[in-house]
Amino acid sequence: MGYALTDVLADRHRRLRQALADRQLDAVIVTHLPNIFYLTNFVGSSAIVVLTPRDLYFITDFRYVTAVEDSWASPSGCPNASLVRVETAYDETLAGLLRFVGVRRVAFEAARVPFAQYGRWVSGLGYPIPGTGVVDPPAAARDDTGQACVLVPTERLIEAERVRKDAHEMATLRHAAGLLTEAFERILAEVRPGRLERQVGARIDWILKDCGFDRLAFETIVASGPNGALPHARPGPRPLAAGDLVVLDFGGVYDGYCVDLTRTVSLGRPDARARDVYAAIVEAHAAGVAASRVGATAWEIDRATRGTLERLGLGEAFGHGTGHGLGIEVHEEPWLLRTQAQPQGGEDEKAGAPRASDVTIESGMVFTIEPGAYLPGWGGVRLEDDLLVTPDGPDLLTHVPRELAIR
Amino acid sequence: MGYALTDVLADRHRRLRQALADRQLDAVIVTHLPNIFYLTNFVGSSAIVVLTPRDLYFITDFRYVTAVEDSWASPSGCPNASLVRVETAYDETLAGLLRFVGVRRVAFEAARVPFAQYGRWVSGLGYPIPGTGVVDPPAAARDDTGQACVLVPTERLIEAERVRKDAHEMATLRHAAGLLTEAFERILAEVRPGRLERQVGARIDWILKDCGFDRLAFETIVASGPNGALPHARPGPRPLAAGDLVVLDFGGVYDGYCVDLTRTVSLGRPDARARDVYAAIVEAHAAGVAASRVGATAWEIDRATRGTLERLGLGEAFGHGTGHGLGIEVHEEPWLLRTQAQPQGGEDEKAGAPRASDVTIESGMVFTIEPGAYLPGWGGVRLEDDLLVTPDGPDLLTHVPRELAIR
Repeated sequence: MGYALTDVLADRHRRLRQALADRQLDAVIVTHLPNIFYLTNFVGSSAIVVLTPRDLYFITDFRYVTAVEDSWASPSGCPNASLVRVETAYDETLAGLLRFVGVRRVAFEAARVPFAQYGRWVSGLGYPIPGTGVVDPPAAARDDTGQACVLVPTERLIEAERVRKDAHEMATLRHAAGLLTEAFERILAEVRPGRLERQVGARIDWILKDCGFDRLAFETIVASGPNGALPHARPGPRPLAAGDLVVLDFGGVYDGYCVDLTRTVSLGRPDARARDVYAAIVEAHAAGVAASRVGATAWEIDRATRGTLERLGLGEAFGHGTGHGLGIEVHEEPWLLRTQAQPQGGEDEKAGAPRASDVTIESGMVFTIEPGAYLPGWGGVRLEDDLLVTPDGPDLLTHVPRELAIR
Repeated sequence: MGYALTDVLADRHRRLRQALADRQLDAVIVTHLPNIFYLTNFVGSSAIVVLTPRDLYFITDFRYVTAVEDSWASPSGCPNASLVRVETAYDETLAGLLRFVGVRRVAFEAARVPFAQYGRWVSGLGYPIPGTGVVDPPAAARDDTGQACVLVPTERLIEAERVRKDAHEMATLRHAAGLLTEAFERILAEVRPGRLERQVGARIDWILKDCGFDRLAFETIVASGPNGALPHARPGPRPLAAGDLVVLDFGGVYDGYCVDLTRTVSLGRPDARARDVYAAIVEAHAAGVAASRVGATAWEIDRATRGTLERLGLGEAFGHGTGHGLGIEVHEEPWLLRTQAQPQGGEDEKAGAPRASDVTIESGMVFTIEPGAYLPGWGGVRLEDDLLVTPDGPDLLTHVPRELAIR
């Protein structure tokens, strides 16, 4: 597939510039790497982008200078970009650039920038910092050109664009989901009594790479028998045994985009309870997919799956949300959660966009539907697919059979 | 090996409490997951810890409550801990806890906490936030008990402890490095002409897991022929060819601790230039190891390797630092860099500890020595081992032969 072409990047820049203009912002400092990838196709680990109404300044260090310059000469090169090489420290280079460019109201990604880094920027721009170490941002300070420069905290400036996939992203995600579908057939053959969970996990990881994924989207889950009751189980030393239900949850990154699939496999003929729980999950999954239409709110989709499980006596067994957005990040907007107020924070979500579930579903959104039932002491079932919302309704991207696989 | 025993955790808490007392701090909010693991053995993805002179409050959500409570009953359980369950949002729960506990000067990890999260804490504690969105922390505000509560930005409070490994950590790192040594013999057999870099990479990842690592410490590097000139090359579609030098850089995480190894392999007999460059790297590596003694500064170790390469005409070819600390994170203190002022920032280092190279080497530090030479158009060589600094000198933890492996 390859990365987004220059014209696609230019469109993204245009939309972001419009968002800046709408908010009376003169520039934005982008530090969140997935957002930098979205704007420039950069896949390295250190860079800062400053987008102004006319220019894109790309700050990076010697490790990436050659690769970045080469990429700009390609059909996927970042348009109208100027390379700014870091000589001593990123934050110092950034402050110097902002003074040089002479912009007044400069947005930054408040959910991504650590307090201490913000302090270094403020300090680099010449703001006072009291001896206590507490940053005290003034309303404005003068830069070299005599203009005032103010750092304005923003959230979701770029994420709000990323939530609707463009044509390049839809095609990449569709292709990646196709690879994941293919991978599953090979993965299924690895699920055998006697194998340890962690051995099966390592096989899955190997298969994903062999199918063409650049890397794993997250740590693979193999949760067998009673371990299936933990939604976040890690593959451990437990050998798979006849009679187990085994939850397999895995995903890959392809050309920068993440896909994610869960299937539950029965080792031997499932008993009546396993069949009942599985059937309930299939029904909840179908309800979630059917509800994934333009104009619905995210919590309504959650309600569709959760309501089904509640009606079937499994409401208490379903402790997490119905799904999450997919794209450059494996967990991104939209969040399909029960209510607006969900636990958030901790390292993995601390920088997260608001996890509000009152977002309205739009065409071009891509997300998972993944109802599950977790019964302590017994085990668990989860069924997860990826879908794209189109004007005509939900379009499933993953195509693995949804009936219970028996091995 | 298992996780640190309760007594080890208690020692860590004692040292941290002393550090708080030394700074007239009454508590610390810990949000950086590696630091939370260091204090509690928690391996999940969402938690906040508040350590006070007498108590440890562990804030987490429903996903982890059962696992945390179970772990506390084990020999590796966190001592004197109270579980605080998140009902709506982590930041709200934290603010409520701080008001309840009634502490006055509360440290937070300024390099880890996003500006927006800090804003939510300040807001939750009842501080004013102007309509601009800019956080305006007052000197103090009253909590429920009438005491004043101030958030004090700190850096390296826990990292300063983690830089010297305790006995549990040394034993774990030694065992993990032994596993990595074993893995290398199997990995070497996978390096064959005709195989694609990405196939070799996937085999390495499989072998690491099969050897007992919980997960990869970072994305494996397989850089063959001219690709070896890029220190951060990703395994790509290039087939290995006779005459190539192939740089293999890989690592694993074992019981929470990271180890990291690089070897360069020659496919077929190396030519004179390859032999010369390789010999220079071996000499620089030996100089770096020999310099890794108690009382040296980090930049002196870098000088030892870099000086060797400069003398041998390869100074320009060595663009990165000599090494980095290893522990709960695969890149942590100490940083063995050329000077104090090195490029830093970007996503991977934005929250990083100061990368100063004037740190003095102490007994118990564990880090890599990894000189390399990168020659555009030709290729590269890198040689990396992990060592522990002891009062008797450097103790290599990885034991793979350092002569050029020929396949």
